[in-house]
Amino acid sequence: MLSKNQIKLITSLKLKKYRQQHKLFVAEGKKTINELLQSNLELEQLYTTSLEFDVLNNLITQISDSELKKISFLKTPNTALAVFKIPEEQPIDFKNLIVALDNVRDPGNLGTIIRLCDWFGVKDLLCNLETVDCYNPKVIQATMGSITRVNVSYVDLKEVLKNANTDIFGAFMDGENVYNTELPNLGIVVLGNEANGISNLIEKCVTKRVSIPRFGEQQMAESLNVANATAILLSEFKRR
Amino acid sequence: MLSKNQIKLITSLKLKKYRQQHKLFVAEGKKTINELLQSNLELEQLYTTSLEFDVLNNLITQISDSELKKISFLKTPNTALAVFKIPEEQPIDFKNLIVALDNVRDPGNLGTIIRLCDWFGVKDLLCNLETVDCYNPKVIQATMGSITRVNVSYVDLKEVLKNANTDIFGAFMDGENVYNTELPNLGIVVLGNEANGISNLIEKCVTKRVSIPRFGEQQMAESLNVANATAILLSEFKRR
Repeated sequence: MLSKNQIKLITSLKLKKYRQQHKLFVAEGKKTINELLQSNLELEQLYTTSLEFDVLNNLITQISDSELKKISFLKTPNTALAVFKIPEEQPIDFKNLIVALDNVRDPGNLGTIIRLCDWFGVKDLLCNLETVDCYNPKVIQATMGSITRVNVSYVDLKEVLKNANTDIFGAFMDGENVYNTELPNLGIVVLGNEANGISNLIEKCVTKRVSIPRFGEQQMAESLNVANATAILLSEFKRR
Repeated sequence: MLSKNQIKLITSLKLKKYRQQHKLFVAEGKKTINELLQSNLELEQLYTTSLEFDVLNNLITQISDSELKKISFLKTPNTALAVFKIPEEQPIDFKNLIVALDNVRDPGNLGTIIRLCDWFGVKDLLCNLETVDCYNPKVIQATMGSITRVNVSYVDLKEVLKNANTDIFGAFMDGENVYNTELPNLGIVVLGNEANGISNLIEKCVTKRVSIPRFGEQQMAESLNVANATAILLSEFKRR
């Protein structure tokens, strides 16, 4: 049975404000939840209509389909919803390749970029304070478990870049052809907002402007999606 | 003023069945509509709350905000909705690099892949019959106008691949490292379903299995999103 207060708490976690206040976030779906259970994340409570989970008794609440519907953020709820504690941000390791995001707003894009960082062995993802929250339920869904292996830090991006003492690469339409650029093993790769690219403020911190060339006769395509641009740039940094 | 029949027709276009029956599809938002108006696509009718469009009088219907709300597929409707005729599929040019999709189901992924084809100068995109319809409103939205520059053909993919007489590349977890593979200027690159990859049926047609290497110490990331995999593979085929 779910109490009114439980329902109120869980549904409040749709909003960043309450996630930050309670230091909790929601994950849904058996696959995603199992990935998170296998990580260092601390489970607060698991709400499920089935008994398929290997979790301590006091951390599991059996609920009905209609109760799940009340707390789920999905149109077609799965069989489980889990509330996890938001972990502390870890120190940033500047001796590695790092990705930084300047005003990325779409949860699907952020989730996919976290998944890309995981794939390419990027441990730290820096986000400016206006980038969408990585504990947004849609981001969690899109990361496919990668959220547990990438350290996402929300920072005053300009200050961090200014003091980073490493190459700062920025993706621009008019940068140097990335295929012809010598790329180091470490540095920070900055990607910008979906519609406007990198902001003027952050552009000033960029030390190397790179560009992904466009092909084809017409060259009419306006831009690449920010997650696809990240995919191509990380591939270029890592390929040998 | 909108008639009941107009409302019924437009809202029916949310479903593939009716799009195919009427040979019509819907695009929303000023930016997307303007991109489509500049192409060879034939406008059936433009419904708008503003007068900002450069379109013949008999093709434009002035409507109210509440009327737009009735016909829009978006939660927060823009100022315009356009109905275009679905163009005829063009013959496939096998003397170019081609992308083929086997059961891609997510409209956002298909839209992004169309945008990638446009960026990398791929003129033909082949889709098996179970791949999501490219005239789905969410696909149109995600292509950012690129739908007008990429020829999307829905085909019996197995038959087309069997008779293509060119290299068929397939993206698999266990293929040859794509960074070490010599890639030609033409051929067909096959990408599979979001959850299951390339089907057994299509796998048999693949002549070269390639793989995007995974980096990092843990190597726990399960897979790449299909659009990101497409981005990296097209970048590898095109870079020199």
